[in-house]
Amino acid sequence: MTATTAADPLPSWNEGPAKQGILAFVARVTDEKSPAFLPPSERIAVYDNDGTLWPENPVPFQAAFAFDELKRRVPAEPALAEDPMVQAALAGDFAKLLQGEHLDGLLHVLALTHAGMTVDEFHDAVAAWLTSARHPRYGRPYDELTYTPMQELLRYLGANGFKNFIVSGGGADFMRVWVERVYGIPPEQVVGSTARTTFKLCDSGPVLIKTLGHLFVNDNEGKPVAIHQFIGRRPTVCCGNSDGDLAMLQYTTINNPRPSFGLIVHHTDGQREYAYDAKTKSTGKLVAALDEAPTRGWLVVDMQRDWNTLFTQSAA
Amino acid sequence: MTATTAADPLPSWNEGPAKQGILAFVARVTDEKSPAFLPPSERIAVYDNDGTLWPENPVPFQAAFAFDELKRRVPAEPALAEDPMVQAALAGDFAKLLQGEHLDGLLHVLALTHAGMTVDEFHDAVAAWLTSARHPRYGRPYDELTYTPMQELLRYLGANGFKNFIVSGGGADFMRVWVERVYGIPPEQVVGSTARTTFKLCDSGPVLIKTLGHLFVNDNEGKPVAIHQFIGRRPTVCCGNSDGDLAMLQYTTINNPRPSFGLIVHHTDGQREYAYDAKTKSTGKLVAALDEAPTRGWLVVDMQRDWNTLFTQSAA
Repeated sequence: MTATTAADPLPSWNEGPAKQGILAFVARVTDEKSPAFLPPSERIAVYDNDGTLWPENPVPFQAAFAFDELKRRVPAEPALAEDPMVQAALAGDFAKLLQGEHLDGLLHVLALTHAGMTVDEFHDAVAAWLTSARHPRYGRPYDELTYTPMQELLRYLGANGFKNFIVSGGGADFMRVWVERVYGIPPEQVVGSTARTTFKLCDSGPVLIKTLGHLFVNDNEGKPVAIHQFIGRRPTVCCGNSDGDLAMLQYTTINNPRPSFGLIVHHTDGQREYAYDAKTKSTGKLVAALDEAPTRGWLVVDMQRDWNTLFTQSAA
Repeated sequence: MTATTAADPLPSWNEGPAKQGILAFVARVTDEKSPAFLPPSERIAVYDNDGTLWPENPVPFQAAFAFDELKRRVPAEPALAEDPMVQAALAGDFAKLLQGEHLDGLLHVLALTHAGMTVDEFHDAVAAWLTSARHPRYGRPYDELTYTPMQELLRYLGANGFKNFIVSGGGADFMRVWVERVYGIPPEQVVGSTARTTFKLCDSGPVLIKTLGHLFVNDNEGKPVAIHQFIGRRPTVCCGNSDGDLAMLQYTTINNPRPSFGLIVHHTDGQREYAYDAKTKSTGKLVAALDEAPTRGWLVVDMQRDWNTLFTQSAA
């Protein structure tokens, strides 16, 4: 199938090297007569989430959830209102939260919003937030802001036998609330940052209580480590957008005995979205991976040039 | 489908309550008109491995691998021969290995055989061992000794839309070498004990080096914790054989809003296999889970009574 047939699998992608690169790779590895043929069991695609499948500005969406949770709880929990780090979060003083070598402020906010409740209670809090919260720039629910071209890529690779996995710095428990509905990716194909829960058999039944113990931050070199731990084999497609994805791009593509494909979403579109790489307002610094891309043959997607649509129109 | 039709899905199971219990559960949850109907996405089955899908005597097979590795390496590595814990392992002195609160001897043997190499090197060592090693009682390669009735159960549940996951105290890296070939379960559906690898980009490409850092032992309360971390939803079928599986049996079946099924393999067959529960020669103590089974409605499989075949005949 090529981009010129009636059923274009990537209609939100403009004609050009990015779209052609994707189509050519998939054609090559799914052709049983090609020496590059990938057996279905080796069609493993990994995707970063923040900045790759949805935006990470003005703050990563999970941080917006944490701040909104504090805001919601402050009226009923006066102790929270006295907490200097809660005050910093509510005032948008992120510099204060990020002070110190161990990011104590940020961890404190995480502890308040991501620990001490059961996994079911946390699930319900995220689900409720997704219903009520609106992105400050787009005025839409956060989960309506996934990139349409990347949604097309997920579906296109899925239709060609690839098993899609999220491999993100975001919390696994946070993402699993909505990824199946929004991306069609089941919870067991979500690799994220995690901490260990505690199992308890209560009168009401078994519960798992969230803690921050054994916190694992799924970023940088942690990504290939987690891919090995959770998936157990090397991916053949890797999509990212920042230096935090560099190690998993390397792990996927360098000296892989299988054909492989690396893709970097470059945020070049200040008008429709945000323009950043070396300098960011939030997360997503992109310098080393961009430098390395030409040598490694990674496809750099220029958001402004390569995507004709960013978000699907709201149903409303 | 019932057990009396021509195509019996469980031919190695004798007629009786165990076989009927399995068939009745599957019929009930796959019938769209039944109030117990399970949507396919909720058909998650978890299986312990040692003692549930293959034996754990005279020692867990992964321990046999570790001892054989030491034996193989001693001639070329004189320092190993001087090591008192290696000597204990080679002499079969397991009591010495298990001395001390922190099981230092066992961890030392683990460190020698399961760390310090790349994941590919470890994979190759396990694959080579499976080819050469023979079980001391049955004289067959270890991976030919999976229980035929449980293989039938895996296939039967798989054919009825269940996604099968191994959730075992065994090492994930050890199991992933052979589970896809032997059980048809891909590496990403194997949840086991893990330690963190280290990512390194060498001249030859990226490697992951095995360490014992952040060791997670996937047993007891660790099992529901790992199920949440790796799978992200509650199972609806759980098969185990020991008190190490009690917590995941509870997590699967107690107050689960979905219909659920718990199964315990009781080793009652000293003639064909091994007979043990409260007293074991190796791992697999079964007391608390057996006590709790009637109250919880877990099916206790009596190996001697319920299984007419233990192992498939060797092709050789």
